[in-house]
Amino acid sequence: MRVGVFGATGAVGREIIQVLGDRKFPVTELKLYSSPRSAGTTLKTPLGEKTVEAFHPEAGRGLDFCLLSVSGDFSRAHAKALAAQGGIVIDNSSAFRLEDDVPLVVPEVNAAAIGSSRLIANPNCTTAILVVALEPLRQAFGLKRVIVSTYQAASGAGAEGMDELLAETRRVLLEGGPAQARKFRHPLPFNVIPHIDSFQPNAYTREEMKVAWESRKIMGFPGLPISCTAVRIPTLRVHGEAVTIETERPVTAEAARAVLAKAAGVKVVDDVANAVYPMPLTATGQYDVEAGRIRANDVFGEHGLDFFLCGDQLLKGAALNAVQIAERMLPKA
Amino acid sequence: MRVGVFGATGAVGREIIQVLGDRKFPVTELKLYSSPRSAGTTLKTPLGEKTVEAFHPEAGRGLDFCLLSVSGDFSRAHAKALAAQGGIVIDNSSAFRLEDDVPLVVPEVNAAAIGSSRLIANPNCTTAILVVALEPLRQAFGLKRVIVSTYQAASGAGAEGMDELLAETRRVLLEGGPAQARKFRHPLPFNVIPHIDSFQPNAYTREEMKVAWESRKIMGFPGLPISCTAVRIPTLRVHGEAVTIETERPVTAEAARAVLAKAAGVKVVDDVANAVYPMPLTATGQYDVEAGRIRANDVFGEHGLDFFLCGDQLLKGAALNAVQIAERMLPKA
Repeated sequence: MRVGVFGATGAVGREIIQVLGDRKFPVTELKLYSSPRSAGTTLKTPLGEKTVEAFHPEAGRGLDFCLLSVSGDFSRAHAKALAAQGGIVIDNSSAFRLEDDVPLVVPEVNAAAIGSSRLIANPNCTTAILVVALEPLRQAFGLKRVIVSTYQAASGAGAEGMDELLAETRRVLLEGGPAQARKFRHPLPFNVIPHIDSFQPNAYTREEMKVAWESRKIMGFPGLPISCTAVRIPTLRVHGEAVTIETERPVTAEAARAVLAKAAGVKVVDDVANAVYPMPLTATGQYDVEAGRIRANDVFGEHGLDFFLCGDQLLKGAALNAVQIAERMLPKA
Repeated sequence: MRVGVFGATGAVGREIIQVLGDRKFPVTELKLYSSPRSAGTTLKTPLGEKTVEAFHPEAGRGLDFCLLSVSGDFSRAHAKALAAQGGIVIDNSSAFRLEDDVPLVVPEVNAAAIGSSRLIANPNCTTAILVVALEPLRQAFGLKRVIVSTYQAASGAGAEGMDELLAETRRVLLEGGPAQARKFRHPLPFNVIPHIDSFQPNAYTREEMKVAWESRKIMGFPGLPISCTAVRIPTLRVHGEAVTIETERPVTAEAARAVLAKAAGVKVVDDVANAVYPMPLTATGQYDVEAGRIRANDVFGEHGLDFFLCGDQLLKGAALNAVQIAERMLPKA
């Protein structure tokens, strides 16, 4: 397969290149594109060192897959034209996620939605991590309500976000000065910022509403009541999510644990007697979403369940999910 | 008033001394006690520099108020004996919080519970921060269910917790080595640990159950359904709390904001158009609990509300609340 990675020098782009190799995606040709500013960078790839080229409007010619991780504006401007050049476009931006004729896919949940589409949207990172755990629970117990509070890492804002957290933490510790904010709205070191993406008229942020909107679409459950509080915290990688659900049918921690243990894309990490539960420390670099702290809550009588997820948002939340979609679209041997 | 601070060299003890001065508590004599190991330390106090003495069993003699912030074991061993020596004992440990004959008090909520008691328990930090916002909302709209996810700072584990976070963050940034854990169960820098205090048979932690048990007692609402997920994150001071409630009567963000704006101990910090919301950065050192991100959630139809709190857990969560209790117990002039 001839594969193009668009936004190759970004945090997600670099992970896509790595994941293609790790999963032995059958790449025969690999083209790397970036903005003119980053063009000329050389990156290690499964096919050896490659130089990143500046994007140009005909860059999709001759490609079987275009994996886009640039920006919503870029995708709105170029994704459909790239698809028209013949390749399948898998877009990591939010540009098309909610368009009726564009599938929004987490393969473990709704691979069938891909159908014959040539443009597929990759979901928001927090959403992808959530639905791999939520869908099997829904299938087993039904789902009435979802409440999520997130613990989101700096890498949600890309490589610049991680660089800023590290540099500003150094500033606080070494210079004793107050941290500065550039990529984030406020200084992130030793702080908590309950604000990711822009505020909507309903006073939720766009990030919080993405979790609601996208989860409903991916799970094919348009009316699912879901409320999210999205919070940036000073971690580098991996989003945590504290999830409370009300189920249709009675649920126990044991039954939920058994369901999640069999769920694709989920790893149950739940041995509290030995202080084993999901954490960024252990979930970083992992493909599976860690699920733990699984317990019945009596807030919803016999229908309440609490659990905690940690997922590497550069992987399941972005690069891995994109490559998994591409894998599902490979021609049958 | 003759005041003794027991555990004077700890993170909370130091704050108690500061708060006594800031609030002009009528201190005529101040005795500072610690373990033999810390005795001899000199501390700045409202009455000038004072040397900390080693605790001894008769240390309560001649005191009007004994403010204890040592440990549950210490309080179980000594609190009642100190009270028998004549002073009023306000205990920051969890030793007596749930005993029927010991009032558990957040003055803005249940000052009347103090009655004629000579031993008063100061609540868990997360609980104190929560109930100052929860009780006025309950009075205005009724309360059916509470779901809380916390973002708890290293100082919840005392001065050693803060020291460890700073030292280990330095280790990661400067030496490039993996962080170590001593006070915490796992390394805290750039990590998230969904585990505070010991695990209970129901798979909740004791910290999480304290929020349920203590909130019910303080609010006089024994059956309140409440589920908490308590999470340690790499911040130094101030606990954040993402709170979702279902009310008895319909609620709107505007109505809730108006209620919280009038609530004692709460400061509404909720101007999202200008990126103003509660954060550790702004709540550190503040007496009032910051409340913001106030919004209606449709998970509970017209009865759902989400909001975010940040409170300095060394102040409202500990030292300030203890001094506020003492203020209520001063002899009437």
